[in-house]
Amino acid sequence: MNLRDLGEHAGQWLRGAGPHGEVVLSSRVRLARNVAGFPFLAKASDAQRRELVELCRSRIFDSGFAEKMLWVPLDESPKLDRQLLVERHLISRQHARGDAARGVAISLDEAFGIMVNEEDHLRIQVLRSGMQLDDVFAQASQIDDVLEGDLHFAYSPKLGYLTACPTNVGTGIRVSVMLHLPALKMTGDIEKVRRAAKDMHLAVRGFHGEGTEAVGDLYQISNQATLGRSEQDLLADFQHEIIPKIIEYEQRARHALEQARTALLDDRIHRAWAILTSARLLGSEEALYLLSHLRLGVAMGRIPGVDICTLNELFVLTQPAHLQRITKRALSGGERREVRAAFVRQRLTEQGGKNG
Amino acid sequence: MNLRDLGEHAGQWLRGAGPHGEVVLSSRVRLARNVAGFPFLAKASDAQRRELVELCRSRIFDSGFAEKMLWVPLDESPKLDRQLLVERHLISRQHARGDAARGVAISLDEAFGIMVNEEDHLRIQVLRSGMQLDDVFAQASQIDDVLEGDLHFAYSPKLGYLTACPTNVGTGIRVSVMLHLPALKMTGDIEKVRRAAKDMHLAVRGFHGEGTEAVGDLYQISNQATLGRSEQDLLADFQHEIIPKIIEYEQRARHALEQARTALLDDRIHRAWAILTSARLLGSEEALYLLSHLRLGVAMGRIPGVDICTLNELFVLTQPAHLQRITKRALSGGERREVRAAFVRQRLTEQGGKNG
Repeated sequence: MNLRDLGEHAGQWLRGAGPHGEVVLSSRVRLARNVAGFPFLAKASDAQRRELVELCRSRIFDSGFAEKMLWVPLDESPKLDRQLLVERHLISRQHARGDAARGVAISLDEAFGIMVNEEDHLRIQVLRSGMQLDDVFAQASQIDDVLEGDLHFAYSPKLGYLTACPTNVGTGIRVSVMLHLPALKMTGDIEKVRRAAKDMHLAVRGFHGEGTEAVGDLYQISNQATLGRSEQDLLADFQHEIIPKIIEYEQRARHALEQARTALLDDRIHRAWAILTSARLLGSEEALYLLSHLRLGVAMGRIPGVDICTLNELFVLTQPAHLQRITKRALSGGERREVRAAFVRQRLTEQGGKNG
Repeated sequence: MNLRDLGEHAGQWLRGAGPHGEVVLSSRVRLARNVAGFPFLAKASDAQRRELVELCRSRIFDSGFAEKMLWVPLDESPKLDRQLLVERHLISRQHARGDAARGVAISLDEAFGIMVNEEDHLRIQVLRSGMQLDDVFAQASQIDDVLEGDLHFAYSPKLGYLTACPTNVGTGIRVSVMLHLPALKMTGDIEKVRRAAKDMHLAVRGFHGEGTEAVGDLYQISNQATLGRSEQDLLADFQHEIIPKIIEYEQRARHALEQARTALLDDRIHRAWAILTSARLLGSEEALYLLSHLRLGVAMGRIPGVDICTLNELFVLTQPAHLQRITKRALSGGERREVRAAFVRQRLTEQGGKNG
């Protein structure tokens, strides 16, 4: 199998409709690990990097984590393939760049990926649809345990796992939840959430991670520090305190819009449906903006006959590399706008549409 | 009869589909006249103003210009009625303002109106759908001749008709044609038309006349000076030179869009239809902008099942005073946006829609 097998649909973590799917798109846990006896990557020679790739790759593929797994040698992959993996959230932007030896192991269902030679030697990432942090963490831990049985990880009894960046030292864990918060955006209360998150030392990022704006009203909430707290405490906080509270705020904002500003709410929702099924040219940002409003309408039961999973998928499939994968040729910016419009129109109307 | 009889539909001059209706909305001729023996209005006393109103009104109604005619005493009319008449292009903005004695006589089919005590004592205005300047001028002349038989108009053998503003001295005529030029706007060539019009001493105004922007890609082209040229020369210029040339430019621009920028063209057209039939809140300017694009699509045969006359009408019926007439109550700006959206949606979808 190869990358051609991906691309037609989004990964299960996005396509599915997990718990609290009306607000939570996905849950993610990422663990940063380094192999003892090798320098951190900033100090590693080319030969050491290559050695790390071979070592990690063979350990990962010997472990049988999934029935079907794919290895992508990023230093030998075309730019479009790397961009595709970034759009699917399987590698980071940073991992896509440069020409040093590195790669990623992906399970075919995209439930997990293991980046080799990103910022750390190993980054184990597990993704699930909706609010499923416990399951996600359980799988990440299992992969971690198996790999740790083979490889010796850099670890200090006092500090915990050692990582390239000090913010990851300790448990090396990053917990992220992707939330759809269009109502809080419309009421303006999203700023309160941002401030509260900052006070709790949480990072709020956009759909595409670090350094991106919250297009399409999608927000990634994640922890910043990993030192001095157990994974269990952190997870319990996310699972039982922080995220349920944000979900509740968003649901209250939706209810308030429904009660007091029905025309505004329905205007956004019906315009979104109308434009997405009619436009002949559609920019990437506008598509996300409209998909967000339509997703709100579907989640609130105000637009019948549209499947929320289709909308989740379109957030990924309308991105540049995916459009080029679908058309099987390089597209200019102008051509992409045309292809994007046609693709969205087809995907939405083949369901029978809002009156179907 | 009274003003209640107007309002449900636009006047025939706008509702109809006259010659070259795909580009020309309407033709208009306006004649400025003053009654000899009375000072211009800037110098007239209140008593003289009232006397002028009585004199002109009785002459107009004795002349039997139309089977059914309506007199509106503007100084005694509510603001909403006056605004309604402005929106229907039956009086000017200037004529709607102030509390001095004045009024307007209107034929029920709105084919002509005679303003009394606007800037001049009399302003005879005739309107027709599409390109019909000859007919329009013939009717204006006929009304002028009849009134001149009763009233003695201020006239100088050297200068011609004397008027309050020097630009109207001479024939006192203003010829205007309302054009829909969306393709020239999209290609940017509208600026060439503007420059050429300026070189020919023509005025280019918006849908609502003097001092308004060209919202909805509607442009009023009219002469500026009236001294030193016969009405016949001026009309021949408009009818056979100026307007046919602009129509040709617009048609060429439409053809060019159809050939080379089909996606852009269809994007505008289909978005316009989609939003107009889906929005729950619609501002006045946005409505005109979208109606313009939809009108282009209908005129070019790219949207089936929509009647161009309905669109012409909506340019007027979506204005504030008309919406309040339709709902029979005063509406805030926010309420108007809601009522406008519902009204447009209903008018467009009751036709069976673009696939009907």
